[in-house]
Amino acid sequence: MADMKTGVTHLFVPGPTNVPEPVRCAMNVPMQDHRAPDFPELTRPLFTGLKAIFGNESGRVFIYPSSGSGAWEAAISNTLNRGDRVLMSRFGQFSQLWADMAQRLGLDVICVDREWGEGVPLQDYEHHLRNDPTIRAVFATHNETATGVTSDVAGVRQVMDAAGSDALLFVDGVSSIASIDFQQEAWGVDLAVTGSQKGLMLPPGLSMLGVSAKALEAHMSSTMQRCYFSFEDMIKANDAGSFPYTPPVQLLHGLRASLELLFTEGLPQVFARHHRLAEGVRRGVDGLGLSLCAVSPEWYSDTVSAIRVPEGIDGAEVCRIGYHRYRTSFGGGLTKVAGKVFRIGHLGDLNEVMCLAALSAAEMALADAGAKVELGAGVSAAQTYYREATSALEAQNR
Amino acid sequence: MADMKTGVTHLFVPGPTNVPEPVRCAMNVPMQDHRAPDFPELTRPLFTGLKAIFGNESGRVFIYPSSGSGAWEAAISNTLNRGDRVLMSRFGQFSQLWADMAQRLGLDVICVDREWGEGVPLQDYEHHLRNDPTIRAVFATHNETATGVTSDVAGVRQVMDAAGSDALLFVDGVSSIASIDFQQEAWGVDLAVTGSQKGLMLPPGLSMLGVSAKALEAHMSSTMQRCYFSFEDMIKANDAGSFPYTPPVQLLHGLRASLELLFTEGLPQVFARHHRLAEGVRRGVDGLGLSLCAVSPEWYSDTVSAIRVPEGIDGAEVCRIGYHRYRTSFGGGLTKVAGKVFRIGHLGDLNEVMCLAALSAAEMALADAGAKVELGAGVSAAQTYYREATSALEAQNR
Amino acid sequence: MADMKTGVTHLFVPGPTNVPEPVRCAMNVPMQDHRAPDFPELTRPLFTGLKAIFGNESGRVFIYPSSGSGAWEAAISNTLNRGDRVLMSRFGQFSQLWADMAQRLGLDVICVDREWGEGVPLQDYEHHLRNDPTIRAVFATHNETATGVTSDVAGVRQVMDAAGSDALLFVDGVSSIASIDFQQEAWGVDLAVTGSQKGLMLPPGLSMLGVSAKALEAHMSSTMQRCYFSFEDMIKANDAGSFPYTPPVQLLHGLRASLELLFTEGLPQVFARHHRLAEGVRRGVDGLGLSLCAVSPEWYSDTVSAIRVPEGIDGAEVCRIGYHRYRTSFGGGLTKVAGKVFRIGHLGDLNEVMCLAALSAAEMALADAGAKVELGAGVSAAQTYYREATSALEAQNR
Amino acid sequence: MADMKTGVTHLFVPGPTNVPEPVRCAMNVPMQDHRAPDFPELTRPLFTGLKAIFGNESGRVFIYPSSGSGAWEAAISNTLNRGDRVLMSRFGQFSQLWADMAQRLGLDVICVDREWGEGVPLQDYEHHLRNDPTIRAVFATHNETATGVTSDVAGVRQVMDAAGSDALLFVDGVSSIASIDFQQEAWGVDLAVTGSQKGLMLPPGLSMLGVSAKALEAHMSSTMQRCYFSFEDMIKANDAGSFPYTPPVQLLHGLRASLELLFTEGLPQVFARHHRLAEGVRRGVDGLGLSLCAVSPEWYSDTVSAIRVPEGIDGAEVCRIGYHRYRTSFGGGLTKVAGKVFRIGHLGDLNEVMCLAALSAAEMALADAGAKVELGAGVSAAQTYYREATSALEAQNR
Repeated sequence: MADMKTGVTHLFVPGPTNVPEPVRCAMNVPMQDHRAPDFPELTRPLFTGLKAIFGNESGRVFIYPSSGSGAWEAAISNTLNRGDRVLMSRFGQFSQLWADMAQRLGLDVICVDREWGEGVPLQDYEHHLRNDPTIRAVFATHNETATGVTSDVAGVRQVMDAAGSDALLFVDGVSSIASIDFQQEAWGVDLAVTGSQKGLMLPPGLSMLGVSAKALEAHMSSTMQRCYFSFEDMIKANDAGSFPYTPPVQLLHGLRASLELLFTEGLPQVFARHHRLAEGVRRGVDGLGLSLCAVSPEWYSDTVSAIRVPEGIDGAEVCRIGYHRYRTSFGGGLTKVAGKVFRIGHLGDLNEVMCLAALSAAEMALADAGAKVELGAGVSAAQTYYREATSALEAQNR
Repeated sequence: MADMKTGVTHLFVPGPTNVPEPVRCAMNVPMQDHRAPDFPELTRPLFTGLKAIFGNESGRVFIYPSSGSGAWEAAISNTLNRGDRVLMSRFGQFSQLWADMAQRLGLDVICVDREWGEGVPLQDYEHHLRNDPTIRAVFATHNETATGVTSDVAGVRQVMDAAGSDALLFVDGVSSIASIDFQQEAWGVDLAVTGSQKGLMLPPGLSMLGVSAKALEAHMSSTMQRCYFSFEDMIKANDAGSFPYTPPVQLLHGLRASLELLFTEGLPQVFARHHRLAEGVRRGVDGLGLSLCAVSPEWYSDTVSAIRVPEGIDGAEVCRIGYHRYRTSFGGGLTKVAGKVFRIGHLGDLNEVMCLAALSAAEMALADAGAKVELGAGVSAAQTYYREATSALEAQNR
Repeated sequence: MADMKTGVTHLFVPGPTNVPEPVRCAMNVPMQDHRAPDFPELTRPLFTGLKAIFGNESGRVFIYPSSGSGAWEAAISNTLNRGDRVLMSRFGQFSQLWADMAQRLGLDVICVDREWGEGVPLQDYEHHLRNDPTIRAVFATHNETATGVTSDVAGVRQVMDAAGSDALLFVDGVSSIASIDFQQEAWGVDLAVTGSQKGLMLPPGLSMLGVSAKALEAHMSSTMQRCYFSFEDMIKANDAGSFPYTPPVQLLHGLRASLELLFTEGLPQVFARHHRLAEGVRRGVDGLGLSLCAVSPEWYSDTVSAIRVPEGIDGAEVCRIGYHRYRTSFGGGLTKVAGKVFRIGHLGDLNEVMCLAALSAAEMALADAGAKVELGAGVSAAQTYYREATSALEAQNR
Repeated sequence: MADMKTGVTHLFVPGPTNVPEPVRCAMNVPMQDHRAPDFPELTRPLFTGLKAIFGNESGRVFIYPSSGSGAWEAAISNTLNRGDRVLMSRFGQFSQLWADMAQRLGLDVICVDREWGEGVPLQDYEHHLRNDPTIRAVFATHNETATGVTSDVAGVRQVMDAAGSDALLFVDGVSSIASIDFQQEAWGVDLAVTGSQKGLMLPPGLSMLGVSAKALEAHMSSTMQRCYFSFEDMIKANDAGSFPYTPPVQLLHGLRASLELLFTEGLPQVFARHHRLAEGVRRGVDGLGLSLCAVSPEWYSDTVSAIRVPEGIDGAEVCRIGYHRYRTSFGGGLTKVAGKVFRIGHLGDLNEVMCLAALSAAEMALADAGAKVELGAGVSAAQTYYREATSALEAQNR
């Protein structure tokens, strides 16, 4: 295949996402001493800002130099104990990996399997919780990146309450937080995990963990092995505006810039924008006569759409063609849906015309891979929606 | 209007063009001493490289810290004399400005006016040259940026030869050189002007002037007022690898990177790519039922398309909507065609999907401005062409 | 010689100067459309800011894409006429080049020569002005970069007044403005020239010309050849927040950042800092038993020190050793003082320890070149001064 | 205190170190898909390059998104088991933290305490190893960053051999690897830890772990809790050129640039340069009449010098003054030597004149803090050495 090397590479994977220019600039600074007396002037507002991002008022937020899976491990190893019974569900690659980790870390995992394309099964959860009062923790993947499915986190806490459970609620918000509405405290979430390279629009390298007051309490009786990820070292250092080890200074500068962008736009506006851009992409998918992996609208994700390829077409080939022929990176299908879907990530620093570019590339890649799609049909459906939505937005802002 | 501040601004003006990442990086360097002993290691290859870009073997290329109009002035004031009779033609904003300058600098200008949408009138030129042997110089705008018209420069020299004229040939190649085939020496061009911010993909700030051996000879008998732009100072300094004044060092680093990109791709490949991307845009324009300002295919420009808006629609409004509502910068219509056209620049660091993005934004802006266009019709026509062209290219590269 | 490639190159030429990080960042932006509707939001405050830098309230400031010599030419060609009698003085490479330009542009130059190491000769000026009422313009080099000499610009206007001359006053402030006190309006300066790469801490590529109301008036009767540099085109475009040709957009972003830095620090503080850093360097020179090219303290420049090398030592060799062996760029001696001096530029984005680094490199380079200097003697004299000055400053700021 | 905001901040902490311009540039790239087909073209050479850095031919190197302490944990939790007896020594803040971690992770630690200023006690080690054949692992801090002490790692393996121990040898090379000679395989090191922000001249955010074939074997029988840091996941992903989670892509680009710089200079040359720069600083310390924390030359570190402040002087005050008054970051004394020393880091991207700048700032800060030091005495001693060393180097390179 010809590899055109000119122009930008169009990045539409569901993370890492496009880094906005002000964030790139903010990170391109000379190295500095992280033990300098004025270093806390950089760090303290980051913790405050992240608490607003998580909707966490009475707890804490930790920042780890790690990928999001590091924060998964931090959450478990600081608040639970080996052998603890926990309730999880599995309906995509990332919910599955989390369940694997829980088992490897010695938890006693009750795992509810659902079709890939559905989300957290509230009724099943309620059933298990009513039947088993020993469940110490409930896990929910807010947004399953592999299938483009968003689950009802507030609903999880509601069924827990209904079942009389006061278990800890763990949420993977890696591909939702800062893009889709998330309210840690209001929803009763105890451990909320996210990473730098999604809605926060930073390069990978940081994970963030929102911890409720209740989880901090639970930490006192947790005796699992931990050191790098231990809360106690973090708390002590963070209270002084520092870290127990050298933090990724450049990413902290980037985080400051990213938070400023998000707060300047306003979180509700950020969520509305993600919805708007996502809806356009979905209209485009529909316009092409294709369907989503998410089995019904209640599960549709505003950060990523996993699109089923027509029978006989290889989704991996669509991605390869997109990348090599049209300089466009789509997400591939993972494990169970490998070859069956390709994914368009639509989170972070994007706009309408960028999404139209993604659709136009997808149409060509699908056609080249043998799919019977009408070129332009997806784009025009999305355009129609974007025109309306933009007008409505203008009217509203006037 | 709502101004979406997220994602990239899509830049489709016919210059300044998108700066490729390697060029941006190359310019982001600490300041250095332009009189350091190793500074010529940076500058010498730039002159060599630019000679290859101009197709100028036996002459010289000068680099001025100025916009392209500075090089226009440098060309005239170093090789002609006040009162010299020159032949020019005017068929767009930039050819008109050059004619104005010639008059202001005291030349005796014979100016042939053509419809905006046509280019250099070879027959008229031949007629004038045959009738007036005192014509000292002939001027041609290779690519008229205001109307998207490319003229036949080789043809100009041919009619000069046919008319027995050995006048100097001045060419404005600002929006053609490094994007459209240009052969200074083979075509008998004596003074060729370009700027940094078009096909060379740099920020504005440098102009380049290719000078033939014959023009260097003519310089000896030119006595026009000049100082900043004088060849004599430049030649003396350039021969030592330096400049008569402090040069824009960062832009020189960018130029090195830009030349490397162009030569790595190969100039014939660069020209072919510009043609391919342009052709897709033209198919898109046709698919929308619109027509170009360029009155016939012989004039079509591979670097910019000026698109006539339907009767009753304001081209300026299309640009305003594109910019504010869809974060896309189009070129507006200038003076005589103000409001009647909008322009898509398709030169420099672009690829197919970026051009589709431009078309999709143009469609929405046109529709919002009241034009009856079928959304997606331009995109799909371009997609069809790009799929074919990409396949053909792959087959050829295999 | 061994060329150590690690660490920073220490830049101590009197321009181009070190670019501060915020300015570098500000320039590292994607390309944008200079005809976009919001472009004037960038440009208008630049003109306002520059007027404050020049101390010019009732006139205008022009920004040219050119080196400083372009603004020299702009000043002359827009306000004078060929054959005009002008009074100049020559006491260094740059005052000499300006006089050359004036002659080449057809002025009738009365040129007073002074020893290199002295500055503008007020008495001679007064004498000439009294004797010759036809003098249309008086030229003064505020800071002669080649010799490190600052002249009394206010004094020039005073002797003009005393002599009853209402000639235009032209000042070259390239290496003084934004570093040394400059008050265009209060001092009666009509044309004040500067460049981007000195006190404004930008890369080279822009020149700025402060023009008094009186000079704008004089412009009306000036008929010299001009086009690229013509005021009329600039005024028309600038009034709309734009330029008559594509401006160096990235440098304009840098200028915005640079102005913000200067105004945040405060111009009086900027001047005081330059004096403090310069005085430390001078103490260091004295501590080494060396003397300045400037013949007496009244001429000492706060932006550059030209240091006489001991008899028998080659100043060029000091520079070569500094550059190759110690990665430090000093300014060399030019033409008449070639080999006799080397120069330490101490303007722009510097601090005390950077100046000590320069002195420590100079000491080693001098010693390596054969000079009998006591290593550390210059550094310690400067340290003593910097400690005192820093304490005094702290006391004052407390 | 007055905080001068102009010029660079002079960074002389022993990490994070100055990031070279080419590395900064390399990291300032748009985000990309870490699952793209050509991503392994970036990653594979990094593993190869790091093996050369570690001197590890038959084992592997892992790259973790974490600080160096993450790699400490990775080393232990992947190759040992809870209750394993290990031999460690403690003579500074970082050797102490590692011993703490070993205890927290459940190892049975025999810890030899030495005066802060000495290093790994070979005789004590041999004694313990002869007496206790159950010791499963021996730990050595190659360079104790808190005291500026380098230990004899080859010697550790020699005493292990002499004592008949085939225990695993763990080495903390965070502040030595890529700056001081290190030969993992030749010296029999099984687990070698380093971080990105020291000799590799990158921002913090990556740790690297060199693992011997023997340690990979030991891994098979290790059952400690691990997930984020587990070798098994890493091996599987790395074999495909990828990572088990999203890696910090920008840092990988920086690592590529950093490795290229190191290999271009040549590792022996890098080590020699570190020695040369360090020796100059030590001469300077001696010239000031001060002494190092390292108690004798055998322990002197070529990457950091911990300098004892005179009796009655507060080392922390020296740092504060250096930072606020002279924009220079020194390392402070930690825990046991808090207030008693300040540290000059001299590793990474530095040169002679930068080290002289550090000494000149240190002299002023010491004097301001009340120390009786002769200003310039340290600088001149270092200058004398640097002149000789530079001449010798030139002679050698000729």
